[in-house]
Amino acid sequence: MEDLEIRRAAADDVPAIVAMLADDPLGARRESPDDLTPYLTALERIEGDPNQHLMVAVRRGRVVGTLQLTIVPGLARRGATRAIVEAVRVHADERGGGLGTRFVEWAVDRAREEGCRLVQLTSDATRTDAHRFYERLGFTASHVGFKLQL
Amino acid sequence: MEDLEIRRAAADDVPAIVAMLADDPLGARRESPDDLTPYLTALERIEGDPNQHLMVAVRRGRVVGTLQLTIVPGLARRGATRAIVEAVRVHADERGGGLGTRFVEWAVDRAREEGCRLVQLTSDATRTDAHRFYERLGFTASHVGFKLQL
Repeated sequence: MEDLEIRRAAADDVPAIVAMLADDPLGARRESPDDLTPYLTALERIEGDPNQHLMVAVRRGRVVGTLQLTIVPGLARRGATRAIVEAVRVHADERGGGLGTRFVEWAVDRAREEGCRLVQLTSDATRTDAHRFYERLGFTASHVGFKLQL
Repeated sequence: MEDLEIRRAAADDVPAIVAMLADDPLGARRESPDDLTPYLTALERIEGDPNQHLMVAVRRGRVVGTLQLTIVPGLARRGATRAIVEAVRVHADERGGGLGTRFVEWAVDRAREEGCRLVQLTSDATRTDAHRFYERLGFTASHVGFKLQL
């Protein structure tokens, strides 16, 4: 793992990120890797928001993971700032090798540096392997995640 | 409901917001209504972030509800921006009268105006009444919500 670099995503990384988002039982139906325009527009919006951290994990020049960390100040829990993790993906070739653990631990450390008192994420109810993964990392499955599509 | 105003929270609203956060089986252990300093500091941070909308519902000059809407741009789902709803509370005197429905519907409308394609929230697994409430409003309990305290 010594050769792993975790850095902010740039426009050049977008094709690799979208390929990972699409290479997924749920993502396959939702993504359009042949048309990157909406993704590049979204990247600009992410880059304009200092509380968004869209990251990639890179090994030997190749993007092998992505996640997004959002810093959310709030009043609840004595004015606790929380970090929300979204869109965690690890390249199929790299799964089971500890990259996911290392990457999520990076996100937790970064949340701590930002003064967050809570890290939270939701995972589709069908992703039972992911649930065990987050529980091994110390997360508690204490909540139900609701979504409404507009 | 005609006399209900929904507006951005200000420093003067903080005591009423914290009282609602604390008047809750889970919140009672987490909040400190006698020391508002951390809440006022958090409000300043919220006010400095254009993607945060900390709102109050006011009736006859009295704060009777609060929620926070966070706008999160992202790459997943073809660059979809999502809205995250946190810290929804309705004053005990106002529960069951449709205020929660009206307030969450306001948040969904506002998310739509902001160009969001998804509204999401998590609710503690023990809040079964809240789960039925969100399902009635069209939300789907499709995810498991994980939290890690730092």
